[in-house]
Amino acid sequence: MIKTIDINSDLGESFGQWCMGNDEIILEIVSSANVACGFHAGDPVGILRTLKSAKENNVVIGAHVSYPDLVGFGRRKMDIASHELTADIIYQIGALQGLAAASGTRVNYVKPHGALYNTIANDEYQANAVIEGILAIDSSLALVGLAGSNILKLAQARGLKTIAEAFADRAYTSKGELVSRRDAGSVLHDADLVAQRMLQLVTEGGIESIDGKFTPIQADSICVHGDSPGAVEMAKQVKIVLQQAGITIRPFIHP
Amino acid sequence: MIKTIDINSDLGESFGQWCMGNDEIILEIVSSANVACGFHAGDPVGILRTLKSAKENNVVIGAHVSYPDLVGFGRRKMDIASHELTADIIYQIGALQGLAAASGTRVNYVKPHGALYNTIANDEYQANAVIEGILAIDSSLALVGLAGSNILKLAQARGLKTIAEAFADRAYTSKGELVSRRDAGSVLHDADLVAQRMLQLVTEGGIESIDGKFTPIQADSICVHGDSPGAVEMAKQVKIVLQQAGITIRPFIHP
Amino acid sequence: MIKTIDINSDLGESFGQWCMGNDEIILEIVSSANVACGFHAGDPVGILRTLKSAKENNVVIGAHVSYPDLVGFGRRKMDIASHELTADIIYQIGALQGLAAASGTRVNYVKPHGALYNTIANDEYQANAVIEGILAIDSSLALVGLAGSNILKLAQARGLKTIAEAFADRAYTSKGELVSRRDAGSVLHDADLVAQRMLQLVTEGGIESIDGKFTPIQADSICVHGDSPGAVEMAKQVKIVLQQAGITIRPFIHP
Amino acid sequence: MIKTIDINSDLGESFGQWCMGNDEIILEIVSSANVACGFHAGDPVGILRTLKSAKENNVVIGAHVSYPDLVGFGRRKMDIASHELTADIIYQIGALQGLAAASGTRVNYVKPHGALYNTIANDEYQANAVIEGILAIDSSLALVGLAGSNILKLAQARGLKTIAEAFADRAYTSKGELVSRRDAGSVLHDADLVAQRMLQLVTEGGIESIDGKFTPIQADSICVHGDSPGAVEMAKQVKIVLQQAGITIRPFIHP
Repeated sequence: MIKTIDINSDLGESFGQWCMGNDEIILEIVSSANVACGFHAGDPVGILRTLKSAKENNVVIGAHVSYPDLVGFGRRKMDIASHELTADIIYQIGALQGLAAASGTRVNYVKPHGALYNTIANDEYQANAVIEGILAIDSSLALVGLAGSNILKLAQARGLKTIAEAFADRAYTSKGELVSRRDAGSVLHDADLVAQRMLQLVTEGGIESIDGKFTPIQADSICVHGDSPGAVEMAKQVKIVLQQAGITIRPFIHP
Repeated sequence: MIKTIDINSDLGESFGQWCMGNDEIILEIVSSANVACGFHAGDPVGILRTLKSAKENNVVIGAHVSYPDLVGFGRRKMDIASHELTADIIYQIGALQGLAAASGTRVNYVKPHGALYNTIANDEYQANAVIEGILAIDSSLALVGLAGSNILKLAQARGLKTIAEAFADRAYTSKGELVSRRDAGSVLHDADLVAQRMLQLVTEGGIESIDGKFTPIQADSICVHGDSPGAVEMAKQVKIVLQQAGITIRPFIHP
Repeated sequence: MIKTIDINSDLGESFGQWCMGNDEIILEIVSSANVACGFHAGDPVGILRTLKSAKENNVVIGAHVSYPDLVGFGRRKMDIASHELTADIIYQIGALQGLAAASGTRVNYVKPHGALYNTIANDEYQANAVIEGILAIDSSLALVGLAGSNILKLAQARGLKTIAEAFADRAYTSKGELVSRRDAGSVLHDADLVAQRMLQLVTEGGIESIDGKFTPIQADSICVHGDSPGAVEMAKQVKIVLQQAGITIRPFIHP
Repeated sequence: MIKTIDINSDLGESFGQWCMGNDEIILEIVSSANVACGFHAGDPVGILRTLKSAKENNVVIGAHVSYPDLVGFGRRKMDIASHELTADIIYQIGALQGLAAASGTRVNYVKPHGALYNTIANDEYQANAVIEGILAIDSSLALVGLAGSNILKLAQARGLKTIAEAFADRAYTSKGELVSRRDAGSVLHDADLVAQRMLQLVTEGGIESIDGKFTPIQADSICVHGDSPGAVEMAKQVKIVLQQAGITIRPFIHP
């Protein structure tokens, strides 16, 4: 039985005068923070603030890299050339490494954001471009990807450490894939239910699929959200239920 | 008598489909390259290309940091808050460090660009914000500034290594300051004259001012340009004349 | 005695996934909306939504033009060249005119935003650049400026219709100038007090200065804010108190 | 037999300090100018300069609208939502209309740029979003599209005037489609050959396909390039050959 699990969340997503998320509160809950790098969100001042707070909370830092699309929040797939994507990944990781160094901490992993995350789950071309970028700047960085997705195998084959993640508030098919956001029931809103599902995930290695079957999912980390009061409560509930069951919340990487 | 001098130039200033400069040719001339970091110019793909070429030419890399003003090419002064400027500097240096690591090289110094360069020569508020940024990310980075300017003293007082630079194609007042670009005769176009002036600078520690007086200027580096055929020829001429006089061109920093 | 007054507010300041302000609620209060044009805030989708809502509420539209500085929200002065500023103003007004046409409404005035607003109150160079831009695209557009400021005289001399505005929540000196935000007491937070001051402004043509003297201020419009729950309540209170005193709230321009 | 034809080219594609194209020279050749609107290229100052020059040359103006992707020059397909694309189109047309008004001219048509141009040739979803945008701002604007492409039929069905264009320097399949740039022989470099092909296009209503068959192409306009000395010479040659054959070069729209 697994005794430990990581909880991660997307942070540092404010931009200039625009606030997003509740980084201070979420940083008390999670063990790992996927921090925006300026391409879909995050300006240097705000990223620095989040990194310093992460450092104070002993939260491990990941680079939440994205397509260059601020107005679209990185949620629109782009047919970006391989060498462009690789260079964009390096630039973003480097920028975050610099801000992390200035905050007395460091970047330990990379988690692609939004449309890039979804695209590389299946698109080997862009997946390899992301992997090339990570290898080029620092091959000790881990890559976070969807549990069961092809990107994790590709990254492992290139020697990268990988982290499989599950989404706390999402329904899964009996194949272990995410139910599309376009389908009914794809997003779960009941904090208690979600927490119980995550407990099952950690203790039994799987969860109930949308059509009622136990579905194995091997996850190293659970992704929670912090961009609404309800999301924060759900994240807290997941953590409490796991801890009450004797499970230790800790980062998948020990910096 | 000084036997060595550094020659630096601004590079990596293309952006996407827009080309600027002749990086390949200039990298065969200079010993140090001030590479754009994406705020006034430079996209990740183009920066990477310039860094790889710099590496091949054994040219030392500096971060050419700027105000965030792509359309204005960093040439417009901005009343940016101190903590914003500091974070912007860290972000840019970090991004370039990442791209440099991916190119098998590293960043050795920081040279503020354009309006920021001019502003911090006199504005202690912004000057200190830049210095804070450098100290926060890597206190071993040197700072390049105008020979004789206040920023160099401020940086030294904070423990930074500094590099004083002279501009090959600019006229100086008898106080050792640059003649304003708005004034007649401020920019020199005769490559032979410019080369002789730089020889005098290195061998005699000063040059003739616009009103005909010998003016002491203590410079560790000479800045040349590469954004026009004439500029490239001038840069070549400066190097040839210095080398023929037995002066070694080498970076002020030995990586 | 004045029987009518305009109330204006800054709207359309969301950007992509980032929300700002409570446009729907504020549009039920104000008679004029200063709508962001994409340079300090506002993306095309969000601007369009605000314009359509303004149209439904019979609110008059103004172009809230800015320096090109999204991350700084247009709050940082830029030493932008005159012809650049003029072209930027035209571009922004044109873009808003296009979106307004698509919403079945039109742009009736121009109000510079943030640092540009403050700069042109005194800087004739940039003030004239803004005026040139308005004249070049549509000389029937009115210009909104700080009551008593020089920009209004400059604009009138060039034939532009001008609108003098007062700020509901700001303290004034006995010279009729705004108390700097850096000074204590510069911003008022008591909605009842603010409403009474605005009633005095409309009925008596002036308000009490920070040092207790009646100060004449000739204003055509009152600027209120909508970016916090307290601000919305204050805006409502100002409108109610004015209406209860028999004053008609209506736009300064009749489209 | 057709006695007139339009020649169009992409202009206004400089950005800030970065120059692209030879607008002054090309404006003496073409009858229609597709002017960048700031999303893939073009800053307000540069666009204004191109528009004023177009006005002086009696060249008709089109809005060269794009995905919002400056660093990618609008050449990367984006999975942008329909309402976002519609709003982006309106914003760009409006901005260009404003700058055109300030230049004493007006916008007469819309030509999507780069990846957007290619995408809407087949993708009805994005095609309709573009058409919606044009209809929303000004239904008298014509739409330029690839001769024979579906977008032209869609636009006509919605009541838009359409303009079919052929590319001077591109090879065609025997189905009348462009040979992919990835295939050998897709781009033609011989100015004389290209000019003869365009003469055939105008006089015979078709050209020889890459596999040697006469292929009917019904085109109202010929697209030439101006971004290299060779391109400018080719554009000149096309015009000269057509004129020598008694064909009048004139805009497809009479403003």
